[in-house]
Amino acid sequence: MGSTPEGRDSALWPDTPKGPLSAYRARASFSSKELLLFWDGEDALQFKKTIFEALENDPLFDRSSGADLPLEKQRELNFLRCKRIFEYGFFHMDDLLKDPLKIPTLITCLGMYDWSLANKCVLHMLIFGCFALTELSHGSNTKAMRTIAHYDPATQEFILQSPDFEAAKFWVGNMGKTATHAVVFAQLHMPDGQCHGLHSFLVQIRDPKTLLPMPGVLVGDIGKKLGQNGLDNGFAMFHKVRIPRQNLLDWTGSITSEGTYSTPYKDARQRLGASLGGLSSGRISIIGMSVVNLKLAVSIAIRFSAMRCQFGPTDEEEIPVLEYPLQQWRLLPYLAAAYVLDHFYKTLFLDLIGLQFGLLEGNNSTRQAELGREIHALASAGKPLASWIAQQGIQECREACGGHGYLAVNRLGDLRNDNDPNCTYEGDNNVLLQQTSNYLLSFLERRLQDGAAFTSPLKTVDFLEAYPGILDQKFTGSSQADWLDSAAPLAAYRWLVCYLLQGSHQKFCQEKQSRGSDFEARNNSQVYCCRPLALAFLELTVVQRFHTHTHSSSVPPSLQAVLRRLGMLYSLWSLNRHMALLYRGGYISGEQAGRAMEDAIMSLCEQLKDDAVALVDVIAPSDFVLGSPIGKADGELYKNLWAAVLQQDGVLERATWWPEFTANKPLASRLKSQL
Amino acid sequence: MGSTPEGRDSALWPDTPKGPLSAYRARASFSSKELLLFWDGEDALQFKKTIFEALENDPLFDRSSGADLPLEKQRELNFLRCKRIFEYGFFHMDDLLKDPLKIPTLITCLGMYDWSLANKCVLHMLIFGCFALTELSHGSNTKAMRTIAHYDPATQEFILQSPDFEAAKFWVGNMGKTATHAVVFAQLHMPDGQCHGLHSFLVQIRDPKTLLPMPGVLVGDIGKKLGQNGLDNGFAMFHKVRIPRQNLLDWTGSITSEGTYSTPYKDARQRLGASLGGLSSGRISIIGMSVVNLKLAVSIAIRFSAMRCQFGPTDEEEIPVLEYPLQQWRLLPYLAAAYVLDHFYKTLFLDLIGLQFGLLEGNNSTRQAELGREIHALASAGKPLASWIAQQGIQECREACGGHGYLAVNRLGDLRNDNDPNCTYEGDNNVLLQQTSNYLLSFLERRLQDGAAFTSPLKTVDFLEAYPGILDQKFTGSSQADWLDSAAPLAAYRWLVCYLLQGSHQKFCQEKQSRGSDFEARNNSQVYCCRPLALAFLELTVVQRFHTHTHSSSVPPSLQAVLRRLGMLYSLWSLNRHMALLYRGGYISGEQAGRAMEDAIMSLCEQLKDDAVALVDVIAPSDFVLGSPIGKADGELYKNLWAAVLQQDGVLERATWWPEFTANKPLASRLKSQL
Repeated sequence: MGSTPEGRDSALWPDTPKGPLSAYRARASFSSKELLLFWDGEDALQFKKTIFEALENDPLFDRSSGADLPLEKQRELNFLRCKRIFEYGFFHMDDLLKDPLKIPTLITCLGMYDWSLANKCVLHMLIFGCFALTELSHGSNTKAMRTIAHYDPATQEFILQSPDFEAAKFWVGNMGKTATHAVVFAQLHMPDGQCHGLHSFLVQIRDPKTLLPMPGVLVGDIGKKLGQNGLDNGFAMFHKVRIPRQNLLDWTGSITSEGTYSTPYKDARQRLGASLGGLSSGRISIIGMSVVNLKLAVSIAIRFSAMRCQFGPTDEEEIPVLEYPLQQWRLLPYLAAAYVLDHFYKTLFLDLIGLQFGLLEGNNSTRQAELGREIHALASAGKPLASWIAQQGIQECREACGGHGYLAVNRLGDLRNDNDPNCTYEGDNNVLLQQTSNYLLSFLERRLQDGAAFTSPLKTVDFLEAYPGILDQKFTGSSQADWLDSAAPLAAYRWLVCYLLQGSHQKFCQEKQSRGSDFEARNNSQVYCCRPLALAFLELTVVQRFHTHTHSSSVPPSLQAVLRRLGMLYSLWSLNRHMALLYRGGYISGEQAGRAMEDAIMSLCEQLKDDAVALVDVIAPSDFVLGSPIGKADGELYKNLWAAVLQQDGVLERATWWPEFTANKPLASRLKSQL
Repeated sequence: MGSTPEGRDSALWPDTPKGPLSAYRARASFSSKELLLFWDGEDALQFKKTIFEALENDPLFDRSSGADLPLEKQRELNFLRCKRIFEYGFFHMDDLLKDPLKIPTLITCLGMYDWSLANKCVLHMLIFGCFALTELSHGSNTKAMRTIAHYDPATQEFILQSPDFEAAKFWVGNMGKTATHAVVFAQLHMPDGQCHGLHSFLVQIRDPKTLLPMPGVLVGDIGKKLGQNGLDNGFAMFHKVRIPRQNLLDWTGSITSEGTYSTPYKDARQRLGASLGGLSSGRISIIGMSVVNLKLAVSIAIRFSAMRCQFGPTDEEEIPVLEYPLQQWRLLPYLAAAYVLDHFYKTLFLDLIGLQFGLLEGNNSTRQAELGREIHALASAGKPLASWIAQQGIQECREACGGHGYLAVNRLGDLRNDNDPNCTYEGDNNVLLQQTSNYLLSFLERRLQDGAAFTSPLKTVDFLEAYPGILDQKFTGSSQADWLDSAAPLAAYRWLVCYLLQGSHQKFCQEKQSRGSDFEARNNSQVYCCRPLALAFLELTVVQRFHTHTHSSSVPPSLQAVLRRLGMLYSLWSLNRHMALLYRGGYISGEQAGRAMEDAIMSLCEQLKDDAVALVDVIAPSDFVLGSPIGKADGELYKNLWAAVLQQDGVLERATWWPEFTANKPLASRLKSQL
């Protein structure tokens, strides 16, 4: 697939437009068309093109760039767009089996356009309605939800009740304005007084004709959010709402017509796990969403930086800001991260599909269970890593574009606001990391207790088998070249994970001894032990996967150099943040090793800066979908920005309120009446 | 002033309301009233109270929390509020001489309410109009501005001309809708063809009666920004706009009636410096703005964290998230930063006033010039440090408040959006840091060339006199207690600055030798040398000032412990980010020293967590001004949030657009006609 003739490529994907950015493109060390085909594959490219063109050609998807729509209008527009996406029928369920990446590709394409739209579509794909778990006073602690479902054997119904407003379902996507049905999580109480824990119930919340709430249901919109305002998040309270026995969703339990409760799960903890199942898939999608946001932001910032000139070697000559090592260092590691994390996301998604096929086939093997745990551990740290890198990267891109990055029309603000919840939903990042560190610590504990092996289906923990030997290793190099050997960051990361794993275990044991309780010992080991452990482990996994991929025979020789450089830049840049630990634990010593790593990072930036624009061409969507005048592919930076500014409503109009002011009318009262 | 009777305090400042937060307040180690009086002083407290009450009682300042106002309405409202602030006459110029902190206190209070308002007022205080320097294609590189003012001796007028749209004045605050006059920076061309460089001209851009643009002026609004949308930033182009000779502002130069140009400055570079004068004052105000934003965000997040319960030692018992070491570590360093940077801001502002009084008195001494350079160096790194800490802190606070932090009504989104430009305007942070590193390097160069002393009027560089000896020092401790000695972080910072100064100089010399040009050598020394040098120097200055202050006899004994803990937490937390360098350069060695610093940071967090709510009471404005339901002083977290959500417009209303949808009308066309 790598070496297709240029002619066929053009039909698949349009040429980049001529313009001032061509100068940078001409300097690239590789063909961006070739990389595009290799990176996405022909089918995905074709599919993306279909979606992008549909959006661009449909007036419903007109971008009123930087438009100032009221909340209600944003929600209406998004609802209609969501409906239209389903009408387009971009995929069929058959496709899913043939090409499991097709759904994430669709979601990614919609997200590149607008996350409110993508998320509304995803929620409607899952169920036509909404998914009501979190309450006003509980989010992370799912077991503590307080909505109650009493079973009434007389009528064979459940009676749903919110004990008070603090137990109102809150933050439920689609619930604010549009959903007619909700999957509500509630504590199941039987007439004998027994509580069987959290179960899910299908509840009709609105009349589909009138949209009026059903009797006993108080439902509304939680209001304006920092971003994704096309999506209507809502709240609901239930007062004696009766639903039939069959509406208990039987993946968590069921009640016979005789009134007997039964569950496929042995204990409450296991049942809870099942009722909250699919956690990995939610977290993995967020990795994908974060990668998209990072791609969009770096595309904008790198194209801007290639065209924006400021200062130069003489007073007369100005050079593009991308030529400054500082600007390269600010942006290129995020470009590298976009590639490396994109690859990680795709491979982890395929791992998840493997897991889900196993579940569908009824695979009950230990390996299947272990695979589930491993994917859960990878997703639980992958989501924090990706969402934080995206959030930081977007902020850096905003700043790197200076004032123009602060204009709404250029979209970096929307990206920051829309990416932000990725750090929170499906589990707060810091809380999630504990899942991953617990996973790793459990291996060490079993090793110390029973001599169990470090091994997992995807082999992400297998290297730990050699941890005592790894802990004795040291970096013996002293030059950039030593760090630019791709084995070097991998070895350093392996040492780091062993060091943090051992350190976390020791810290936990010490704290347990001095404080007594597991709860306190765990809490006191998070900040400087378990948290960096989970992150370092995930960075290693990400770097390892990219390394394996870019050193495999599937990569066309002409693309190897640039892809490996991206991998090296990301790994050294990430590793450099752990430098204090590498020194502290004695893995490296002396001034030279540290300086050499910095030199290696700066060299990689210098080597990649002429490839940066071409690398962006591969990951950026069409200009229409990117929706950022300063990020357009032709590089006509000021022309595009000036045109966008002048096209805004009212840009040259006088303030409508001015004449009243000059006439000295009673303003406060006038204004008040308008608000 | 420290130990006033409680009775008088209450009249000055209202008691914190009763409510669930009282439990935390009762655990504080100090009296928050006493700290409030000590920190702000009686006069400033009284002044703040006056302003807060005026805002709260005036319907024009009604907060429609999370309101969904269109851009035009935001600009109108802000304009009217700005006008009202001037009508209140909160201060007189006499006050300025008596109490120079009064203006920043006023600006701070307005900023706590809304930065769009504060900034519009400030711009109108400086000139009634706007200040047009930056152009579409030039920001940082001020010398490269391309607007031209030709002098026409025949009519004794200047003819203003924008050569093309890339030279349009752009981003000018107040220009979008309201300013009638502008101070325009343009290159002064004389009839003999000579260009005298950038000068400033007073230009009428709109008719004050009709607000119509003056002939030859194209003026408009640049549109929606990421934040501060009450402020109307604009653009302008000039085509043969004639203004009288007298409108050349004579602080940069003047032209006699005979047509001769004269300037008080000897060379063009010096004149440029003067025409861009007041840079320090702009940067210092931004430090103050950033500190305000940080205060508001930590106030919200800490009050939230003290009330939000999640998980606990048993399934039955939930504890406030503030009790978790991880949450403490996420938030308390930013609380400490708010105090430490607030003190730095106030003292630097007073230094600036000293400088400006000297200028007014015509002081031409070398010391005065040196003082100007030193303040410029402190402001140029202080602005990046403060704006970045605020931006990161707001993001951390947003995440620490989970989903509720993502609701617009809780204000963390506005804070993030409104603080963001602090990283950019008055100079991009990364570019500004070079001013500070250049300042420090110039001392070292003069030392190496002529043996000149390291000394400056405010003595911030004087310690460098001993740099060779300092570079030989090492941290010899190994326990938390060793780091908790306040001399320890100061000594470590002094070593770090010497190490980075020497390293930056060496790097520059090496690069110059290998690359040939100063320009390249400077660019290649930024990332890992000059940039951290400037930041470390400023952190040392900030930490040193707070240390001196909290160890002076002016601090009431009952407040010493808590204030010193704040200083220690900030300094160790900041220093910890440089740990890799401390190890690399051999200042610390061995595992224990590094672990001990982490232990010290966690201990300080634990010691401060019971004081956190009371510390927030000192820096938070009134509930009305804070404007965040989850951050209210009574701690009725869910009650306040629920009330705010239900009070929003349309919260329980059906989607107005739903009936049309169900009736299957042609939606796209209908929608299109509405947009």
